[in-house]
Amino acid sequence: MSIRVGIVGVTGYGGGEASRLCATHPEFELTYVAGESSAGSKLLERYPGIGSLGDLVVQKWNPTELPKLDVLFASLPTGESKAALAAVRKETKIVDIGGDHRYVDGWTYGLADIWPEKIVGQTRIANPGCYPAATLTALAPLLANKLIEPSGIIVDAKSGVSGAGRGGGDSKFGYAEVNEDVAAYGLLKHTHMPEIASTISTIAGSGGGLVFTPHLIPMTRGILATIYCKGTATTEQCLDAARKFYADRPFVRVSEKPPHTKWTLGSNLAFVSYAADPERKLVMAMGAIDNLGKGAAGQAIQNANLICGLPATTGLAGAPLWP
Amino acid sequence: MSIRVGIVGVTGYGGGEASRLCATHPEFELTYVAGESSAGSKLLERYPGIGSLGDLVVQKWNPTELPKLDVLFASLPTGESKAALAAVRKETKIVDIGGDHRYVDGWTYGLADIWPEKIVGQTRIANPGCYPAATLTALAPLLANKLIEPSGIIVDAKSGVSGAGRGGGDSKFGYAEVNEDVAAYGLLKHTHMPEIASTISTIAGSGGGLVFTPHLIPMTRGILATIYCKGTATTEQCLDAARKFYADRPFVRVSEKPPHTKWTLGSNLAFVSYAADPERKLVMAMGAIDNLGKGAAGQAIQNANLICGLPATTGLAGAPLWP
Amino acid sequence: MSIRVGIVGVTGYGGGEASRLCATHPEFELTYVAGESSAGSKLLERYPGIGSLGDLVVQKWNPTELPKLDVLFASLPTGESKAALAAVRKETKIVDIGGDHRYVDGWTYGLADIWPEKIVGQTRIANPGCYPAATLTALAPLLANKLIEPSGIIVDAKSGVSGAGRGGGDSKFGYAEVNEDVAAYGLLKHTHMPEIASTISTIAGSGGGLVFTPHLIPMTRGILATIYCKGTATTEQCLDAARKFYADRPFVRVSEKPPHTKWTLGSNLAFVSYAADPERKLVMAMGAIDNLGKGAAGQAIQNANLICGLPATTGLAGAPLWP
Amino acid sequence: MSIRVGIVGVTGYGGGEASRLCATHPEFELTYVAGESSAGSKLLERYPGIGSLGDLVVQKWNPTELPKLDVLFASLPTGESKAALAAVRKETKIVDIGGDHRYVDGWTYGLADIWPEKIVGQTRIANPGCYPAATLTALAPLLANKLIEPSGIIVDAKSGVSGAGRGGGDSKFGYAEVNEDVAAYGLLKHTHMPEIASTISTIAGSGGGLVFTPHLIPMTRGILATIYCKGTATTEQCLDAARKFYADRPFVRVSEKPPHTKWTLGSNLAFVSYAADPERKLVMAMGAIDNLGKGAAGQAIQNANLICGLPATTGLAGAPLWP
Repeated sequence: MSIRVGIVGVTGYGGGEASRLCATHPEFELTYVAGESSAGSKLLERYPGIGSLGDLVVQKWNPTELPKLDVLFASLPTGESKAALAAVRKETKIVDIGGDHRYVDGWTYGLADIWPEKIVGQTRIANPGCYPAATLTALAPLLANKLIEPSGIIVDAKSGVSGAGRGGGDSKFGYAEVNEDVAAYGLLKHTHMPEIASTISTIAGSGGGLVFTPHLIPMTRGILATIYCKGTATTEQCLDAARKFYADRPFVRVSEKPPHTKWTLGSNLAFVSYAADPERKLVMAMGAIDNLGKGAAGQAIQNANLICGLPATTGLAGAPLWP
Repeated sequence: MSIRVGIVGVTGYGGGEASRLCATHPEFELTYVAGESSAGSKLLERYPGIGSLGDLVVQKWNPTELPKLDVLFASLPTGESKAALAAVRKETKIVDIGGDHRYVDGWTYGLADIWPEKIVGQTRIANPGCYPAATLTALAPLLANKLIEPSGIIVDAKSGVSGAGRGGGDSKFGYAEVNEDVAAYGLLKHTHMPEIASTISTIAGSGGGLVFTPHLIPMTRGILATIYCKGTATTEQCLDAARKFYADRPFVRVSEKPPHTKWTLGSNLAFVSYAADPERKLVMAMGAIDNLGKGAAGQAIQNANLICGLPATTGLAGAPLWP
Repeated sequence: MSIRVGIVGVTGYGGGEASRLCATHPEFELTYVAGESSAGSKLLERYPGIGSLGDLVVQKWNPTELPKLDVLFASLPTGESKAALAAVRKETKIVDIGGDHRYVDGWTYGLADIWPEKIVGQTRIANPGCYPAATLTALAPLLANKLIEPSGIIVDAKSGVSGAGRGGGDSKFGYAEVNEDVAAYGLLKHTHMPEIASTISTIAGSGGGLVFTPHLIPMTRGILATIYCKGTATTEQCLDAARKFYADRPFVRVSEKPPHTKWTLGSNLAFVSYAADPERKLVMAMGAIDNLGKGAAGQAIQNANLICGLPATTGLAGAPLWP
Repeated sequence: MSIRVGIVGVTGYGGGEASRLCATHPEFELTYVAGESSAGSKLLERYPGIGSLGDLVVQKWNPTELPKLDVLFASLPTGESKAALAAVRKETKIVDIGGDHRYVDGWTYGLADIWPEKIVGQTRIANPGCYPAATLTALAPLLANKLIEPSGIIVDAKSGVSGAGRGGGDSKFGYAEVNEDVAAYGLLKHTHMPEIASTISTIAGSGGGLVFTPHLIPMTRGILATIYCKGTATTEQCLDAARKFYADRPFVRVSEKPPHTKWTLGSNLAFVSYAADPERKLVMAMGAIDNLGKGAAGQAIQNANLICGLPATTGLAGAPLWP
C-alpha cells in the first residue's frame, strides 16, 4: 500500500523538485499539490515533463481542508509556514522544506546524513537550508572528531540562482544580469548563519564567531561551501575521519580532489573534501551539493523516507547528470 | 561646442547602452537622463561603471519640461512614445529606440547602414528593431540586386535575453529558467514581422509571405538571423553583392564563414554571410549583431551622428569583446 | 536474471550518459565498460557521482576479447565502428550510438518512437543521430498523414555543445568562446542531412531538396529543431495527427505551445508542436529533445529495451530536471 | 607622432585583449603582432571584429628580429618569456603580461593603481597576475593604513574561465563541463600565492600565513576576491581609507555594496568594498575586476601609458558593458 503524499508550494523550485522526485518514488503516491500562483491549473502546465502526475490539479492551499495524507512536504515562503502547518492534523507527517521551523521546539532539524537516528520516528521535520546542508555535511566529521576548533570558522559559499527561488520579478536574478557576474551578498547577516552556528554547537559542544559569506554565481543549481577552520589535523586525518563518519551513509562521498558541484547535478549526493596545512594551523573543508537536491527536495524525500520507515535511499538512486 | 544629449528610459537595457556609448562619445555631452523606476537616484546606482556620468540624477520623465537638448534618445515601453515625443519641442532632434514610430509619417526609419542618405538632415528617426536590424542588414544586398525573390522569405532568428528588456518580473527570463533552454515564441505573429516585411517591399519593390520565427537562447546579448530565400544566385554572387553594397559602410563586415554573434559583442558591428545552392534554388543569408549595439543603442548613436552632421563612426569605434 | 550489458566509449558524453541510465535500470547489469583515454582507471574517476558502478575498471577496447554480454552499447568516434563491431560475436546484441551503421544493411535504424515494431526482434540497431531524432520525431506524423510535402523541407536546428562530444581540445568549444555566442555551421553539408533525408523518404515514399542548418548555442544539453514545410494543413490538424500518431508512445508529448528543450533535460522525452498558416501554405513543426537523452543514450536504452523484450520505458522513467 | 607598439602572444586571450585596446588607443599604433599557432594568418581571422588592425599579419615570434618598436606587450606561456625577452633590444620598452618576470630583478612589478610612481620612468614592467590584481587592489588601503594584520589573510577567489587561457584542449574548460559547475583548484599551492604574499610584505613591512583558494566558475570574464583579515577596524574606517588611497586613481571605485564583477566587464575598472565586524576582529575586503582588463591587458596598457609618459587613462576610458 503506497504512502499518500502532498506538496504545498509545488510551483516553486523546491516544491517542484519534490514533485519530480515523487514521480519516480516507488512508495510515495503524490495525490495532492497546492500552490498560490498556479492554483486551478494542471501540474503539467508548470512542469510539462512531469509525466502522469501532470494531470494533478494544483489546489488553493488551505491547511484545514487537506485530503488524507501520510506525508506533507511544505515549501512555503518564509514566515508563512508556522501558523499554516500548525493547522495540519497530527496524523499527517510534515517535512518543512522552508526555514520557519529550523531549531523550533517540536520539530527535528533533519540532517539526514549526520543524525538519521534522531529523525526516525519523528513526525515534524525541519529540512535544513541549502547553505547549511553543504556546510555542515563538510564540517560534521571534523567537529565530531575534534579535528578543528568549533569557533572562528569562515564559510565562503557559492550558490546557483535557483536557491533564490523563482525570482519574484527581480531583474537581478534575470539571465542578462546573472550571466557573467559574481558577487557576495548578505554579508555578516545571512539568515542561514544562526542555523549553521547552532548545529556547530550541537555537534561540537561549543562554537562562536562564525563567518558566513554567500555568493551568487551564474549557475542554475549547485552550492559549493569552501570552509576555513583552525586546527592542526592533517589532510589525511580529515579524509579518514570523514570516510568513517560517512561509512554507512549512501549519499555522502569523500573525495581526495576538490569537489565539483556538477558531480551532484540533479541528485541527492553530497561530496566533501579536505586540505590541511598543520604548520599554518589551517584546515580547509569543502562541501558540494545540488541546492535543490541535498539542499532542499532531495534531503526532504530522504527525511520522509526515514520518518516513514523506508530505507533512506528509496526513490533517490538517480545518478547526477554528466555533463 | 559639444552636442547636448538626453536619454529617456535610461534604466532599461537599451537606454543604458546609449548612456554607455555617450560616456566615451567625443561630441555628445549627456546632460539629461530620465526614467521611471529610478527617478531621483544617481545614474551610477544603476551603472556603477559608467564613470563621471554617474553623478547625473535620473529625472522623472516629463516631455514638456525638458532642458535644452540637441538630441533626445527615447527608449520607452511600447505604446508610451507617441504622445510623449509629440510634446518635445521641434528643435530637439529625436532618435526613438522604441518601436512606436517605425513606419509612421514624419519619422524616418533609420537603417543607417542601408540608407544613410535618407537619414542625413532629418530630425525624427525611428530606430530599427533588433530583429529587423539583423535580418535586413543581411537581406538588403540581395534584395537590392534582385538575387532573391522578395516573397516567401523565412527568417529563423535567435536572440539573447536582453532583447526582452529587464524582464518585468517574469521568472521565464530568470537565469534558472533560461540557462539550458531554447524555444521559439511569437510564432507567425511577432511584432517585428510587419517592420521587416515593409522594408523588404521598400527595397525590392514587392514582397509578401514573410515568415519570421524568433527564438530565445541562453545569452545576454546577440542576435543571429538565419534566413532562407528562393533564388538561383551563387554563394559568390551574394558575397560580391554584399561587398559592393557595404563597401563604404564602416560597420558591416561580409564574412565567408557563418558569422558568430560574439564577433559583435559590445560593438555596433554587423556581420553578414551567404550560402547558396542554385540547384535547390536556395539562398541562405545570415546576419549577426549585438542586439543592444546595432540592434538598439549602437545604431541609435549612429543615426544621431548622421542627423547631427557627424561621421557615422563618431564614438562607435570600440571593438567587440573577445572572448 | 539480469541482462548483462557493456558500453564501449564510456568516457565520451554519449557513453557516459548510457552508464548513468544503466545505474538505475532495473534489468540491466553493467558489467563491462571500455574506453580509450581512460583505460585502466575506475569509472568513478570520470563520473564521481555514478554510484556503485564507479568501481568498474575501464577496459582497453578489444572487440574480440569481450566478456559475455547480452547487449553492447557502442559510442565510438565516426569511422571506428564498422570493423570493430563486425568482430563482436553474434550472440551479443548491439546498439550503435555512433553514426557508422545508419542506413547500413543488416542494421535497423532505431527510431524507437516512430517504428518500434521494426526494432523488436532485431540484434543490430543503429541509433539515430541527435539532430535526426529531434527533426524526425516532429516530422513523422505530418509525413505519415501527408499533411506536408516531403520535399523542400527546411530544418533550422539549435544544439547544445555536448553534441560535439568532449571537444577534442578545440577552444571553439571552450566555455569562454561558446558563452555569449551563436553561429550556424556545416551549411548545406552536415553529416546528418542524408540520414534525415533517407528517413523522410522512407516514411513519405518520396522526398528531396532537404535543407538542414545546425547551430551551436550556449547550452550543455538540448536540441530544438524548427522546421518549415509546405502544406495547407491547419495547426489543429497537425496537432491531432501527432496526438494520434504518438498515442501509445510514452516518450513523445504533443504541446500546443512551442516546446522548450528544458522540458526534456536529463530525460528521454521528446516534445513536438506545430503551427500552420494555410494561406501561406506553411506548416511549422518543432521538436525538442535532450541530445544525450532521446538524441543518444536515452533512445539507445529504449532500443535495447525493445530488442531485449522489455517495455520501452524500463529504466527511463526519470522526469526531466526543472529548472 | 604615434608610439609604435607590438604584441607577442596575440592569439591568446590576454594578447588579444591588448590588441582590442590598441585598436582604439589614440597614441599607440599597433604595427607588429606575433603568435605561435596563428603565424602567417591575418589578425582578423582570429578577431573578425578587430577593425582596420585586422589586416596585420601575425608573425612568427623571433625576439632578435623585431621591427623597431617603442613598446612590446608580451603574453607568452609560463617559462617562455625570460630568455626571449632578454633578447629584445633595450630601446624597446616591455610590459610582460605573463608571469615570468614578477618580482625579478630589473623588472618593476606594475601595480599601476597602487604605486604608479614606481612605474613612471621604467622600461621593464612585470604586469600583475589576475588574481593578485583583484586581491591586492582590495587589500592595499588596509595594509598601508595598518587596518588589518598582514599575516593570516585568507583569499577566496572566483574566476571566469578565460583566465585559464584558450584551454589547451582540455575538456575541463569546455562549455559542457564548466556550465553548471564550480570547484576550487590549486589548493594551498597556486602559483599566484607568492606574488600576493610578496606584495603584502612590500606594502605592510611584514606578512605570512597567506591562504589563497582560487575557484573556477561559469563565466568568461571576471574575478572576485573575497578576503578575510584580522583587524578591529570598522567598515567605515576601511571605506574611508580606500577612498583616500584611491582618491587620485581613475580606475578604482570604492563601493559600499559588495561589488559585482559585471560592473567591470570589458573595462580596466576595479571595484573594492569592505565589511567589518570589530567584535569578531574580522575585516572583509572584496575586489572585483575583469581578469582580461585590470587582470591582464587593461593594466598592461595602463602600465605602458605610464612608462610612455601618457596619462594613465589614455585609451582606457571605455565603460563596462551592462548587462
